[in-house]
Amino acid sequence: MKTHLSKNYGGHQAIQTDLYQLTMAYGYWKSGLYNRQSAFHLFYRKPPFAGNYIIAAGLELVADWLQDFSFSTSDIQYLGSLKNSNGSRLFDESFLNFLQRMQFSCDIHAVPEGTIVYPHQPILRIEGPLLQCQLIETALLSLINFSSLIATKSSRIVQAAAGDPVLEFGMRRAQGLDGAMTATRAAYIGGCHATSNVAAGKAYKIPVKGTHAHSWVMCFDEEIEAFRAYAQTMPDNCIFLVDTYDSIEGTKNAIKVGLELREQGNEMVGIRLDSGDLAQISIEARKLLDVAGFPNASIVASNDLDEYEIKKLKETGAKINVWGVGTRLSTSFDQPALGGVYKLAAIQDENGKWEYRMKRSEQIIKISNPGRLQTIRLFDHNHLPMGDIMHDISDPSLNGKFWDYQTGETATISWSTKENLLIPVFQQGEKVYNFPTLEQVRSYAKEQIALFNNIDHAYKNGLAKSLYDRKMLMLDKLV
Amino acid sequence: MKTHLSKNYGGHQAIQTDLYQLTMAYGYWKSGLYNRQSAFHLFYRKPPFAGNYIIAAGLELVADWLQDFSFSTSDIQYLGSLKNSNGSRLFDESFLNFLQRMQFSCDIHAVPEGTIVYPHQPILRIEGPLLQCQLIETALLSLINFSSLIATKSSRIVQAAAGDPVLEFGMRRAQGLDGAMTATRAAYIGGCHATSNVAAGKAYKIPVKGTHAHSWVMCFDEEIEAFRAYAQTMPDNCIFLVDTYDSIEGTKNAIKVGLELREQGNEMVGIRLDSGDLAQISIEARKLLDVAGFPNASIVASNDLDEYEIKKLKETGAKINVWGVGTRLSTSFDQPALGGVYKLAAIQDENGKWEYRMKRSEQIIKISNPGRLQTIRLFDHNHLPMGDIMHDISDPSLNGKFWDYQTGETATISWSTKENLLIPVFQQGEKVYNFPTLEQVRSYAKEQIALFNNIDHAYKNGLAKSLYDRKMLMLDKLV
Repeated sequence: MKTHLSKNYGGHQAIQTDLYQLTMAYGYWKSGLYNRQSAFHLFYRKPPFAGNYIIAAGLELVADWLQDFSFSTSDIQYLGSLKNSNGSRLFDESFLNFLQRMQFSCDIHAVPEGTIVYPHQPILRIEGPLLQCQLIETALLSLINFSSLIATKSSRIVQAAAGDPVLEFGMRRAQGLDGAMTATRAAYIGGCHATSNVAAGKAYKIPVKGTHAHSWVMCFDEEIEAFRAYAQTMPDNCIFLVDTYDSIEGTKNAIKVGLELREQGNEMVGIRLDSGDLAQISIEARKLLDVAGFPNASIVASNDLDEYEIKKLKETGAKINVWGVGTRLSTSFDQPALGGVYKLAAIQDENGKWEYRMKRSEQIIKISNPGRLQTIRLFDHNHLPMGDIMHDISDPSLNGKFWDYQTGETATISWSTKENLLIPVFQQGEKVYNFPTLEQVRSYAKEQIALFNNIDHAYKNGLAKSLYDRKMLMLDKLV
Repeated sequence: MKTHLSKNYGGHQAIQTDLYQLTMAYGYWKSGLYNRQSAFHLFYRKPPFAGNYIIAAGLELVADWLQDFSFSTSDIQYLGSLKNSNGSRLFDESFLNFLQRMQFSCDIHAVPEGTIVYPHQPILRIEGPLLQCQLIETALLSLINFSSLIATKSSRIVQAAAGDPVLEFGMRRAQGLDGAMTATRAAYIGGCHATSNVAAGKAYKIPVKGTHAHSWVMCFDEEIEAFRAYAQTMPDNCIFLVDTYDSIEGTKNAIKVGLELREQGNEMVGIRLDSGDLAQISIEARKLLDVAGFPNASIVASNDLDEYEIKKLKETGAKINVWGVGTRLSTSFDQPALGGVYKLAAIQDENGKWEYRMKRSEQIIKISNPGRLQTIRLFDHNHLPMGDIMHDISDPSLNGKFWDYQTGETATISWSTKENLLIPVFQQGEKVYNFPTLEQVRSYAKEQIALFNNIDHAYKNGLAKSLYDRKMLMLDKLV
């Protein structure tokens, strides 16, 4: 397991946290609660993009980040230098010594990357010493939130492209270079076919694509000269960007050079459009290419594309075969954050007995679910998903009766087989999960999407009756 | 100069680029153009957030990234393994050898971080061998685009808070952990007072803030028990989060514990609200605190805040003293990317004579500016900025006449003193700029904002007449 984080953050990454995790840790330590076994869930409440679900992603980054979880000597010195507003030291010496010797020992269960996950379902369940569970919250949220957001966005764009290749081009507009690495990885999981990001191509064996920019054309006095020079130096990789001056004239120049290339035994790969009315220009360019004897030349298009724009272009009859998507994918422009949260759901008392916890809210839907939770996915005899039921692992009984999030009522699901969504990833701080390759994750995500697109009923999703009853009982007590 | 990139990307970062930069580099190399001196500008066209300008940021990250610009042996091996679609090698051996031995030798002029920059003005001017200028484009865009976006967003939020402290809390929703580092740094430049991000606090000496989360409260049977435990362990750092169950009841519990604290000689710092109607609750909480003898206790508020929400809350009379801003700042939620571009503007011919280049467009405003450009900022005798004029460095004459972007007409500016916005940062690949501290950058940005807020005229901004004439002449030739 080696992600781009291995290089960036390998060793001593515990400092990457919010200060309040450390002040709470200090509080737990001073109150003697720090070693209490506790259970937290990382989940989200509202699907992004007005969709129904997310494609979970980022787990391998989490595992990589946790691999060598510790504070460096200079981190400890820094923490020792922090002061309260009245000038007193924020953390005392014995706590800092404790932090420096701390060894990560949590259990983590998680849904594999590429899995379709519905609101409220745990993406990760973290169990272990209260203090440790708390310290890792911020990084886990950051890593899972962003990757899942982009994988989901990517899957939407790839679906809109309806089988055409989608190239991810977003590095220059990404939120930092590392943001670009994470975005490229997640976009590939979501179904993109290739990227422009060479570092990600190398790190993750993602196919890389690209030919030339406007600046290439502008280095020459005439556009056709620029195309000729490109064709001479790279006869096997010619996609000509035709819109530097005028897309139609550019297409004609590309065709001229394409014919010259053919004479010498090479074939032009295609043209790229990057501005103007992509529908109209692509239709005209397609005609020109076809008439000139290039029916197989691709028309690549880019320029602020996303799933909505691609759908619209397809409906207008645009003759585009390959979609280059940048900013709107890599930053998830129309919703740049997934609101994943991390909530305490159970904590052991002094005698090691689990006590359940939940966060109250005025809306039932926002009340967190108490317990140590697992989601069971139920399938019919054709292995089509029928519904998901969340339950406490101490109550594995399943009679098909559950409380439905959508209707707010008790319902039943008829099913034939079942699967646990959460599987063990860390046990006592040691990685126990054999991570699939990124290619395998991508295939799995593709299967998942196909599976869920085949469902013709509203997907059922809720709490086991026993869990729901617990929740209501706790709610009564709290009021 | 040491940024968080030093650790993440130090050495061999040249691989962080788009593939088309490498294919173009290959083309330049094979065509014998690779060593031609050329000039590129990095600029943006449209101010974000319907504002007028950006706060430039990210330059120190750029310098850090460029510090040891090279390909590693394994990068070269990877590039050597890339294939065209027909199976031939994408790059030949001699080009790869060239890349491996390449030494960065560009000149870079840039506006200092914290400077107010208007559309079309160069944020960076890069001059050097064509091939090198091209290879660094992607990273420079990524680093400048994101930092400038967040610094600008932060300045808007800080201005809305009208003097109240603004705390940046966005790490958990940021686009990756490195995205969080960059966002925190840029948010501080834009005027935020502190961050929750401990790693950024350490790396950049940014004040860190934080007390506790809902999970702290949920670990105890009663809220007041949780507050007491917190007060006992950290008597000097008590901001109680009061909304775990009910914000008003929570405030009453905070007051009880605040009185107990006071008896033992400590003072509660304040309370934090994180949900519900922040205006109404803060007014009620303020009354309770005042009546109970805590007029100096702060009310910190958070929950999807941004400049619009803060302004609205202030108008409604909310009694909030400290603003905690997360997602909407760190991802620049309402516009998560700045559309900065990087355009060739001049290239030398075989004889070393500069030839000018521009990218055409149907709209005059989108046509790039040809030449090697500098922006002069003009001031009146009170040192108030009067306007900015962009000119070619080969024509430093300045008679105050210029072509105005806003009106599209020729105008004049009366002025007393002037300043060049672009200053030398790299010469022949060597850093020649002594970077200010982050604290100094933040102060400078604050001065800049105050200066430009004092201007009661529409700010004038355009091209020196000589540059405009060149542009029109070139346009005529192109048509």
